[in-house]
Amino acid sequence: MATNIETCIQQAIAYAQSQHEQHLEQFQDFLRIPSISADPAYKEEVQRAADWIVTELKRLGFTQCAALPTAQHPTVYGEWLNAGDEKPTVLVYAHYDVQPVDPLDLWESPPFQPQIRGNKLYARGVIDDKCGVFLHLKAFESLLMTMGTLPVNVKVFFEGGEESSSPGMEAFITEHKDLLAADVLLVSDGGNPPDQPMNVYAVRGIVSAEIAVRGPQFDVHSGALGGVVHNPAHLLAKIIASFHDEQGHIQIPGFYDNVLGFTEQERAYFAQDETERIAEMKQSYGDFTRWGEPDYSFDERRLARPTLDINGIYGGYQGEGDKTIIPASAGCKVSMRIAPDQDPHDIARKFTEHVMGFACDTAEVTVNITSANWPARLMTESPVIDVLNRAYEAVWGKPAKMSRQGGSVPVLGIFQRELQMPMTSMGFGTGGNGHSPNEYMRLEYFQRGIETAIHFFCYVGEEESRRCYE
Amino acid sequence: MATNIETCIQQAIAYAQSQHEQHLEQFQDFLRIPSISADPAYKEEVQRAADWIVTELKRLGFTQCAALPTAQHPTVYGEWLNAGDEKPTVLVYAHYDVQPVDPLDLWESPPFQPQIRGNKLYARGVIDDKCGVFLHLKAFESLLMTMGTLPVNVKVFFEGGEESSSPGMEAFITEHKDLLAADVLLVSDGGNPPDQPMNVYAVRGIVSAEIAVRGPQFDVHSGALGGVVHNPAHLLAKIIASFHDEQGHIQIPGFYDNVLGFTEQERAYFAQDETERIAEMKQSYGDFTRWGEPDYSFDERRLARPTLDINGIYGGYQGEGDKTIIPASAGCKVSMRIAPDQDPHDIARKFTEHVMGFACDTAEVTVNITSANWPARLMTESPVIDVLNRAYEAVWGKPAKMSRQGGSVPVLGIFQRELQMPMTSMGFGTGGNGHSPNEYMRLEYFQRGIETAIHFFCYVGEEESRRCYE
Repeated sequence: MATNIETCIQQAIAYAQSQHEQHLEQFQDFLRIPSISADPAYKEEVQRAADWIVTELKRLGFTQCAALPTAQHPTVYGEWLNAGDEKPTVLVYAHYDVQPVDPLDLWESPPFQPQIRGNKLYARGVIDDKCGVFLHLKAFESLLMTMGTLPVNVKVFFEGGEESSSPGMEAFITEHKDLLAADVLLVSDGGNPPDQPMNVYAVRGIVSAEIAVRGPQFDVHSGALGGVVHNPAHLLAKIIASFHDEQGHIQIPGFYDNVLGFTEQERAYFAQDETERIAEMKQSYGDFTRWGEPDYSFDERRLARPTLDINGIYGGYQGEGDKTIIPASAGCKVSMRIAPDQDPHDIARKFTEHVMGFACDTAEVTVNITSANWPARLMTESPVIDVLNRAYEAVWGKPAKMSRQGGSVPVLGIFQRELQMPMTSMGFGTGGNGHSPNEYMRLEYFQRGIETAIHFFCYVGEEESRRCYE
Repeated sequence: MATNIETCIQQAIAYAQSQHEQHLEQFQDFLRIPSISADPAYKEEVQRAADWIVTELKRLGFTQCAALPTAQHPTVYGEWLNAGDEKPTVLVYAHYDVQPVDPLDLWESPPFQPQIRGNKLYARGVIDDKCGVFLHLKAFESLLMTMGTLPVNVKVFFEGGEESSSPGMEAFITEHKDLLAADVLLVSDGGNPPDQPMNVYAVRGIVSAEIAVRGPQFDVHSGALGGVVHNPAHLLAKIIASFHDEQGHIQIPGFYDNVLGFTEQERAYFAQDETERIAEMKQSYGDFTRWGEPDYSFDERRLARPTLDINGIYGGYQGEGDKTIIPASAGCKVSMRIAPDQDPHDIARKFTEHVMGFACDTAEVTVNITSANWPARLMTESPVIDVLNRAYEAVWGKPAKMSRQGGSVPVLGIFQRELQMPMTSMGFGTGGNGHSPNEYMRLEYFQRGIETAIHFFCYVGEEESRRCYE
C-alpha cells in the first residue's frame, strides 16, 4: 500500500468531494438531534444521537458497535480491525453531546434546525463536537469505498457527557482498558483558527461545583423580617466576592500551589501575535475589554492559567417588576479550569473548605462538587506528531502550531493516566460561538477536515510510520 | 342617630352575620382574580379586579365610581356623600393588587383558587390586601341594608399598584387633591396579631432598584475567554457584598444620616415581649435564626430600622447540570425599607452613587431606581385614634397598641405630604404568609373586621366625634 499511498488518498478525497452535498445533508440530520447532556430532560435525545452513530458505524462495517452505558450517558464504541496485525490501531475520541442552548432568544435560527447562511453552517454542536464524530465517519467511509479497507485498525470512542464534565468517565475507562487498548490515541475535539492548524499539547482540567445558601424556610416578606433574617443572596455575594482580588487573582488558599510554571519558550509563544489573537476572539465572541491577572499575557490567562468562573447565579424573584421578599435560598454554579499539574480533588477540597468557611448559624451553606477532572500535558514532540504535521501540511499547506488549549477535555487526563499511549489531537471545529448562541462552522473546513483525517490515517498506516507506535 | 347608635351597629352586625356564607363566597370570587401588579402579563387581570370593585361600589349606590388610570394600574375611586354636609367625609384606602406567587411549587393549593383548610382561608392577597377592600365594602353594605344610609360620607381610594411600590402615585394624588379631599383618612392595609389590634403610627418608605452588570456581548465559553473577560456575576457579587458589614449594618456612605432615633418609650416598647414576638414570626414564617444589627432589638430592626435586601438575583445558566460559560450579564433586584425621616430620593442617589463606584471599563454597571417612596410618621395621639380605639374595644375587648410597621404603604407618605388630614390605620390582615407561599387569613377575623369597620364609621359619625376632623 505504501507505494501508492498518495493515489489512495486522492481517490478517497475525490470520493468525499463527490459526496459533499449528501454528507452535508447527513451532518445536518445528526445536528438536528438535541443531545444536550447537562439537562436530564434530553436524556432520550442523547441516546438517540448515540444510536444514530451506532447505525452509521454498522453501515461502515464496524463491529462490536454499541452504545455502552456509563454513569450518565452512553459512550459509543465500535471497531474496525481488518487492517491486519502488522498495522497499528488508532483509538479515535470525540464527543457527540452538546451544550445547552439558552439564552434561546439570541439564536438567529433555532439551534437544532441547522441553517447555512453565507459560508457558515449554524447549529448547536456543529463545532463542539459533532464535527469530531461526523468528519471521522466520513473519512472512514471515503477510504472504505475507494480502498475497500482502512489503512489502519480503528477503534472509536465517542463520548456522550463531555459537556457535562464527563461524570463517571474515569470509572468507565478504567473498567474498559482492554476494549480501549490501542497504539495511538487521536483526540478530535476543539478546533483551529482559520488557516492555522493547531496541535494541542496541554488541556486544562475542570472542577465544577454548585453552591447553595439557604435562609428562611420560604421566601418571606422583607417588610416583616428584613433586618432580622440573614438574606442568603447577601451571603452568597460575600462568598463569590471572596474568590478573586480586584485583578482576577484567585484568593482561595493554596489554589495555585501546583500550577506548573511556563517555560521561556512558552511565554514567548503565548506573547506573540497578541493583537491578532485578541482580534480573532473579538470576531468570534463580540467586543470585550481585556481583564485579568496583569502578570500574564492574554493567551496565558486564556489558555493556560487556572480560572474560576461563576457560570450561573440565581435566587429569589426574577420576574418583571418588584417582589419585596427575602429569598429562601440563593445559589450559583461555578467551574474552575485547572492547569497542569493541579489535582482536581485537591482543588475541590480547597474550594469546599474556603466556601464552608462562610457557614454560620444564620444561614446554611452547602457545596456540591459536580465534577473533578484532571488537566493533561501531552508530548510536544513525537513521531505521531510528525505524522499529524505531514497530514496538515498536505491539506493546509503548513504544519500545526503547538499550543495549549483553554478548554477542557476531561477524558484526556484519564486516558493519559490509565492507558499510557502516544496521543495527539486533531480538532475540526473551525468556526465560532462554541457554548454560545449561534454556534457555527466555516463550511470550507468541512471538506478540509475529512481530507486531513484521510491523510492522517494513511500516513499512520505507512510502513515507515511504525516507529510512531512501537 | 346618635341616640340609637348601638342599635344601628347591632342591626348592621346582625345583617353581616346573616350574610356570612354569601360574603365569604363573594370574597373568594374576588380572590380568584390574579391581580399581580408587578408582572405586566397580568395587566388585564388587575383591570378586571378594578372593574369588579367598581361594579360592587355601584351596586351599593356609590357614585363617581371609576377605575381611574395612573402611570401603571388603575386606582378605583367611588363616593357616597349622602350623609349630609354636617357629617364628616372619611377617605378609605386599601389596595386590590397582590404580590407575585412564585415559587408556585410551595403552595399547598393554587394561589388563585381560594381554599378553606381548618379555620384558615388560603389565597394570594387574602390578607395583603384584598381583605382591606372587601371587608369595607361589606361594612358599607351592612350599614346601608339596615340603616338605609351610611353614618358618614365616604370616599374610597383602592390602589392597584401598591405591591409594585406605587409607581406614579405621587403624581396621581397631587393631580386629584380635590377629588380625594376628606376630613379623615383611614388606611386599611397590614394586619393585627391574633387578639391584639394594632394602630400603626409609622411606616417605612421603600426605595427599589435593579442593578445590571453587563460583560461580554453574549454568554461565552469559559474555556476560551475565562481569565481575560470580566465575569459580570463576580462584579455583581462584589457590589452586593459591599452593602452590609458582617453584622448587617449598611455600608453605603451617608445611608443612616436622617434616620430618626427612637424615644426611650419606643425602645422600651420594642424590647418588650421579644420572645413572644419571635415565636409569632416563626409561626408565620417558619423557623429562622436571628440575624442583624446587634445594637437594636428584634422589633426595632424588623419594624423601624432601615434595611436593604436583595429580593432576587440572576445571571447565566440556571438549568440542570453544568454550562461552562461566562454570562453576558448578571443582575439583582434590591429594595430598601427606609425609616422616618430618610428621604427616598436622597437614598436613591446615595445608593446609585455607591453602586456606580464599581463601574469600570471591563464591565458596564447600571442602576435603575424602580420606586422611591417616603416613609411616614402619623400622629400617635388624636381624637380619631380615640374613636378607633373605641371601635376596637367594642369588638376586640381591648384598645389598639400603637406600633410602627416594618412594611411600606407608599401612599401614606404621599397622603401625609399632599393631603394633610388626620389619618389612622385599621388593618384586617390577621393571618400569615403575606408575600410568601400559602398566604392565609384566620377566618374568625373576617367577621371581626366587618364589625370593627361598622363601629368605626358609626362612632366617627356621632355628633360628639366632630372634634375628630374639625
